[in-house]
Formats: sequence, structure tokens, C-alpha cells
Amino acid sequence: MKEDLVNILASIVGEENVKSDIIDRYCYSMDASIYKSIPDVVVFPQTTDQVVEIMKLANTNEIPVTPRGAATGLCGGAVPIEGGIVVDLTQMNKILEIDLDNFCVRVEPGVIQLQLNQELKKQGFFFPPTPGSKKMCTIGGMISTNAGGMTAVKYGVTRNFVLGLKVVLASGEVLSLGGKTLKRSLGLDLTQLFIGSEGTLGIITEALLRIIPLPEETAVIVAPFEDINEAAKAVNSVLNHTIPTAIEIMDRGIIKAVNAYVPELNLPEVDALLYFEIGGTPEEVKKQTELIVETCKKHKSNNVQWTSDPSEKQMLWQGREAAGGAIMNLDKRLVRVYEAEDVCVPISKVPEMVKRFQEISKKYGVPVGLYGHAGDGNIHSGVLIDVRNPEEWQKLKKLTGEVYETAMSLGGNISAEHGIGVLRAGWMDRILGEGLHYVKKIKKVFDPKGILNPGKLGI
Amino acid sequence: MKEDLVNILASIVGEENVKSDIIDRYCYSMDASIYKSIPDVVVFPQTTDQVVEIMKLANTNEIPVTPRGAATGLCGGAVPIEGGIVVDLTQMNKILEIDLDNFCVRVEPGVIQLQLNQELKKQGFFFPPTPGSKKMCTIGGMISTNAGGMTAVKYGVTRNFVLGLKVVLASGEVLSLGGKTLKRSLGLDLTQLFIGSEGTLGIITEALLRIIPLPEETAVIVAPFEDINEAAKAVNSVLNHTIPTAIEIMDRGIIKAVNAYVPELNLPEVDALLYFEIGGTPEEVKKQTELIVETCKKHKSNNVQWTSDPSEKQMLWQGREAAGGAIMNLDKRLVRVYEAEDVCVPISKVPEMVKRFQEISKKYGVPVGLYGHAGDGNIHSGVLIDVRNPEEWQKLKKLTGEVYETAMSLGGNISAEHGIGVLRAGWMDRILGEGLHYVKKIKKVFDPKGILNPGKLGI
Repeated sequence: MKEDLVNILASIVGEENVKSDIIDRYCYSMDASIYKSIPDVVVFPQTTDQVVEIMKLANTNEIPVTPRGAATGLCGGAVPIEGGIVVDLTQMNKILEIDLDNFCVRVEPGVIQLQLNQELKKQGFFFPPTPGSKKMCTIGGMISTNAGGMTAVKYGVTRNFVLGLKVVLASGEVLSLGGKTLKRSLGLDLTQLFIGSEGTLGIITEALLRIIPLPEETAVIVAPFEDINEAAKAVNSVLNHTIPTAIEIMDRGIIKAVNAYVPELNLPEVDALLYFEIGGTPEEVKKQTELIVETCKKHKSNNVQWTSDPSEKQMLWQGREAAGGAIMNLDKRLVRVYEAEDVCVPISKVPEMVKRFQEISKKYGVPVGLYGHAGDGNIHSGVLIDVRNPEEWQKLKKLTGEVYETAMSLGGNISAEHGIGVLRAGWMDRILGEGLHYVKKIKKVFDPKGILNPGKLGI
Repeated sequence: MKEDLVNILASIVGEENVKSDIIDRYCYSMDASIYKSIPDVVVFPQTTDQVVEIMKLANTNEIPVTPRGAATGLCGGAVPIEGGIVVDLTQMNKILEIDLDNFCVRVEPGVIQLQLNQELKKQGFFFPPTPGSKKMCTIGGMISTNAGGMTAVKYGVTRNFVLGLKVVLASGEVLSLGGKTLKRSLGLDLTQLFIGSEGTLGIITEALLRIIPLPEETAVIVAPFEDINEAAKAVNSVLNHTIPTAIEIMDRGIIKAVNAYVPELNLPEVDALLYFEIGGTPEEVKKQTELIVETCKKHKSNNVQWTSDPSEKQMLWQGREAAGGAIMNLDKRLVRVYEAEDVCVPISKVPEMVKRFQEISKKYGVPVGLYGHAGDGNIHSGVLIDVRNPEEWQKLKKLTGEVYETAMSLGGNISAEHGIGVLRAGWMDRILGEGLHYVKKIKKVFDPKGILNPGKLGI
């Protein structure tokens, strides 16, 4: 049977675009999460028509299908939990159209965020949503998780930039959704329904995205705070007057880790470090810089640094950019595990969430560094455990539960931009309540046999 | 039976909040569209709990329910086509919370756009989506139609500002969706599904909306163009550098009508008149004004006018604001009928859409004035016919068909911000194709008996 499957897939996409030996299949058993599950076969379609044929085959034979982009996801969204076919979309990576008359681009799902923005930069434009994985992550993956990143405070998330989609459903049927208009009042919006659905409703084979002009100039401001509550007040005060492109935060734990990782940065080891990025005309940038610097000073930040010089900006950003890689330096005997890594709270609750996360970390003796997007309440964590010790996994599970319950009690949620995947599938009942019942029914409308990315989203 | 119904409803909401005599029912048989249909009873709930009881009653007895806000809709969305109960939500009109720490407001559905913005202005904030009917229209109605208005070019539409909803389903079940966070990656987003659904999936009884700081200063620029193609080039050129708050357009027909309506305005009777609004710090406004004025001049606009003085701004806007009321002056023997009044095309196609709309108008001998939102491709029309003559209605139907086919052939759609209602329900098959099949199935998931706003959206 498996051999038959490989042969039929080869007849659809060509022999060179099917992988079925165990080494290849092992490579496609994982993403950036803690999960692994070996697929029966991996296929690399080049066209929408090929995806259609793959889905027809899978649907007729009830074979699970897991769509996959760059597999940078942290929740197992691209892990083929029930085996079957992995549909890798990275070869559908063409920018099909840059339409500067209508301020949009049409792309295949495998286009990488940075690749798209490098092309757009030549025209003076950009596609704002900017995940930390921008150098690797695909547009298809960004749409499937409604990815955000640090610019969401000003520009919003991926959802706000998707004008249309082409999707292949479980049955092989193709839906063309949306179009090159900025407004649409046509009843239920299926484009929006597919955004964030993590490949459970269909496979995205084309996307139409809004783009906007690049700001003329940008500046970076870095402000250390001895008290995170003052940092939060500064953020609120700034947002009362203007909306910066990014407002990032790092807690004491992560600052120490960064200093251990890149000693020459020598960051001040304070309660909270804020990074602001602003953009606009030189006049605007100057005025906003003054406003933000003054506001931070008013809230007891000494040694505020700022610059609009390109190489100095890069230097200032280094601290924040090192955060992810630095986390292992919290304790080199331990390993980072992605759990409780993407909570979101109302922005006024950021200090409380950080403090309580630190307390929970202390309670369980699990080292944690916190960083993230203070401007939209999205806090990332680096959590370290001894992965060989089952008790540590138990502790981690309890820690995660407490962190999620804390976020929810503060009016927040368990994932801002990474998604649900397998990692948080068990929490969907708690999060959506009765809503989950309706989500499951909608899933059944699009995929009655349940072959598309099974085991994800709790549906 | 009808008497029983009235009595039970009175026991739910109080006698004073049920209307069942024929004069009252007649008043609630219409909205701002061409449709009329008399309901059996009109009910004015004060709380979510009352809406729950009403829906349970209706669902058990399979009575049609039509939710209604200010009834400013132009497509019959609030007309009780199949009779039954009209649920008027205008008494649920409280601003429940203004949360400046988290830049959001929680409101009941009957809050009026202007009322909300007057309250927010005191705090230096605003809720950007601005329909032409802002003085009357409710937030519930705006969400139900994904309303836009002239500020959509910069800020986006209602969808972009809805953080959460409380909805009562057909069964009486209550879903609390979303929350006070700006990011969310929790799988299928039900909040988004309800936006634009015109009361066919549930009744909105509470909404959580994002708000942003008011710009310090605004300015208005008005530029006449002898050639609409030059106007379009000016719009594109501006949008390559900056995104104004609004870019409005009026064609020759509507300019003439406005001059007949308010002669002292004495607008230049050119091919196209553009209105720009910009906002920001005084420095930004100055710089953007210069940019836009220079751009318009470069594209052969003489006599560009601009101002940031409040009373002068109001004077300049008068022309555009008079457009709706002026339309009858195209031919005083005729009556304006709302058809083909809200098409949307990719913005580069605005001149072609306007020209072809004018040609279609000439072909059928139906006077038409065109105006709307050049910055997002949304063209409104005022179409006049002799409503006593059935042949004129036939002509109007043909004209509408040609206008819609033209918009679609240009990559556009048949409604940008007014919605579908009854008016365009017959077009949904043509617009959504196979997608309509899935929309119908989703409708069935939420409202299996089909009692919620039947006869709308083609579902």
C-alpha cells in the first residue's frame, strides 16, 4: 500500500519530488517544537493542480495530510502526528506579482518573509508582519498561524494584510477567496476563517497581501528601568500620544543571559529594559524620539540611549536580538523547551504577568527568562529543564498550567502568535469553552473525513 | 398565537418594551433600503439575558428573528422579510467601559458611532471607522456589515478594530469571543466570522473595540482635475509616499448636483474632484500637505485648496458632505434608488470604473452621480428613476447587472461596506461561486432551523 502511494504521488509531482526513504522521512518528522512523528511519505508539489491531485488521492483513501512550510513553528503544527503525507510547500516559492498600482503582492505559500521584503524594498515598500523567524518562515506558515512579531503594535498582525487566498480543500476543490480590494462586505468572510487555521481547513497555495510604503527613516530608543511598573507606565504614556512601530521588553533574567552570551554588550542588569522602534519622516522621527525619551526619563529611566544612525541602530538592537539564543545561558546544564512561550495579556497587565511568571518559575525551580512585545502584551519565555529527567517534565507541565491560568485570569490568552498545534491542543476546551463545539463543526464542514492536519487545534 | 407571542415577550422584556399594533409594526417594516415587510411583533431588549430568552422562544417555535440597529442599512438587512420578531437593539446603548490602560472600549450594540466618538474625544482618543451615517448608525450594525467609510484607507475597516464580541446564538446559547489582547493565534477565529455576517449567525449584545489616539492636527486638501486619469495618478503617487486618512472623489455629475443643491459652494465642474484628509503632528501635517499639493499640481490640477484651520476645513468638506443629499438634483422629477451603490474595485481601476459606470448610465438613460472613496476603490452612486414606471425598474435591474459585472471584471466586488441584505442576495452565487456552498453550511452550524435573519446573504 505504502509503495502504491509513493508511486501514485510520483505520477502527480514527478519522482524527484517524492521522498520516502527513512532518513528523509525522519527529517520531516519534526518542526521547531518538542514533537516528532514520522510520515509515510513527503511530497513537494510545484503547482496548485498538483496539490489538488494529492488531496483527491488522500481524501479518497482517508490518508492524513500535514501541510508544511519552513517548519519554524514551535507547537508541532507541521508535525505529522498521525503519519500519512507531509505536503512540503517550500518549492512553491515564487513571488507571482508585485502590483504597485494597487499596493499588493501575489505570492506562493513558500515565499520567505525576508525574501519578499528584500524584493519589496527595491520598490520602497514592505510587508509589515515580522516574526522573529523572518529569515526562514514562509508566508503560508505566517497566514496559518496569524503570525505577528514586533511590528504588530503599529501595523497589526498577518490577518490585517491578507487580501485574498487560494486554498485547496480536503476534497481537492479549489476556493479563490478575496481580491485586490481593500474593502469587502459580502457576508461571512472565508478568507478570514482560513487565517490562523493551521492547515486544518485547507492548503493555501496562493496569497494576495497588502503592502505599504517603507518609512523614510527609523530610530531606536533603549531605556533601562529599575522597576518594571515604571516601564509599563512609560509604555502607556507613549501610546497615549503615538503608536511606535515596536515596543520590546526584556526582564532581568534574560538581560543576564544576554550578558553571559555576548559579554561585550554589557547591558544594564535592571528590572526591565525597553526597546522602542519608530518610523516616519525625519521630522516625525525626531519629534517621536524626543517624546519617548522624555517619557522614559519621567518614569525614572536613567541612561536612555537613542539613535537613527543605521549602524548604531543595529548595535542597540543586538541585545534584544540575542535574547532567543542567549536563553541557554540561564543554566548551561539545561535545555530550552518551548512551553508557555507565547502568552498574551492586556498591555496594562504586562508587569503583573512578568512578576507572576517569575514567581511561578521560582516556585518550581525552573529557570525562566522573559522577553517580548510590551506594546501588544505578548510575552515570550525561555524555560529550561533537564530533559532527561521525567520529573522535570512534570514540573514544566505544572508551571505551564499556572502560567496559562494566570494569563487568562488577567484577561489574556495562551498564544499570541505561535499558534496551538499539538502543544496547546489540550487547552482549547478551556480557552474556547462552548466555542470549541462550533469550531469542530466548522472543521467538519470543510474536512468531513478529518484528514487535514489531524491532532491539531483540539479539533 | 400572535397574541400569545406578544404576551410571552412582554413577560421577558416588560410590556413597555414590546410593540405589536399595526402602526408600530409598520414603522419597523423598513430600513433605508427599498424593501418593506411587516413583522409580527417588535421587541426592545435591555440585557443579554433578555436576548437569550427571546432566542429560546423563537428557536423552539421556529419564529424568524431579525436583529435591528439604527436601520440605516441600504440593502434591507434589517427588514423582516419573513415576518416574525424584530429585535431592536437601540436601547442597549451603554458604553460599558472605556479602558485607557488597554486602549479599548466595551460597548452595547446600540451605541451610536458619533456618541462613542464624542465620549472618546474627551480622552483624546477615537474609534476610526466612520460610515457616512455616523450620526445615526450603531456599533452593532457597523460590525454586522463590516462598515468602512472614508477613513478606511489609513485605518482599515470595522473588522480591524473588533477585539471581541458577546453573541447570542439561535439556540439562546451565549458565546464570549476574543478579549482585550491585540494578538491571538488560537485557531479558527469566531470573532472574525461574526463580523459582516449581518445577523445571520447570532445577535451581538456586546463588543470590545480597539481605540487609538486622536491626531494632534488635521488638514484638508481639495484638488480639481480636468481628467479623472490624472486624478488617479495623483492618488497613486501620494500613496507611494504616505497614507492619508481619507481620499475622496466626486465625478462631474455629482459636482453639478451639489452646485444645484448648494449654489454658494460653486464647485468647479470638472471631470473629478479629489478631497484629501491628513492627520498627525503639526510638522507631519505640514509636510504631507506640501507633498499632496505638489503631487496634485504635477498631475495638472490647478486651483488646489488646502487648510488646517477648523472652520475652513468644514467649509471645504461641505461639497463632499452635500453629495448624498444633492443627488436628487440630478433630476428633480425622479427618485433616488439604492442599487449598484457600493461597488469596490482595485484602486488603479477607479477611473475605468467611473467611466464605464457613466457609459452604462448613458446607455440606459438613467441619471447617475458618482462619489466615494478613491483611496480604497469604493465608489458610491446615486441612481435616479421614475419609481412609478415598471419599465424604469427593469432598466435599473439591467444597469445594476452591468455595473456589477464590470466591477467584477476589473477585479472588484459588488459591496465594499453596505453589505448584501436582500438587495444583493441573488448575486451571492455569482460572487462566491463554490464558496457559497460552504457559507450555507456554516450558517447551518450556528442556526440549524434558519430562524436568524432569513432571506439575507443568499443563505
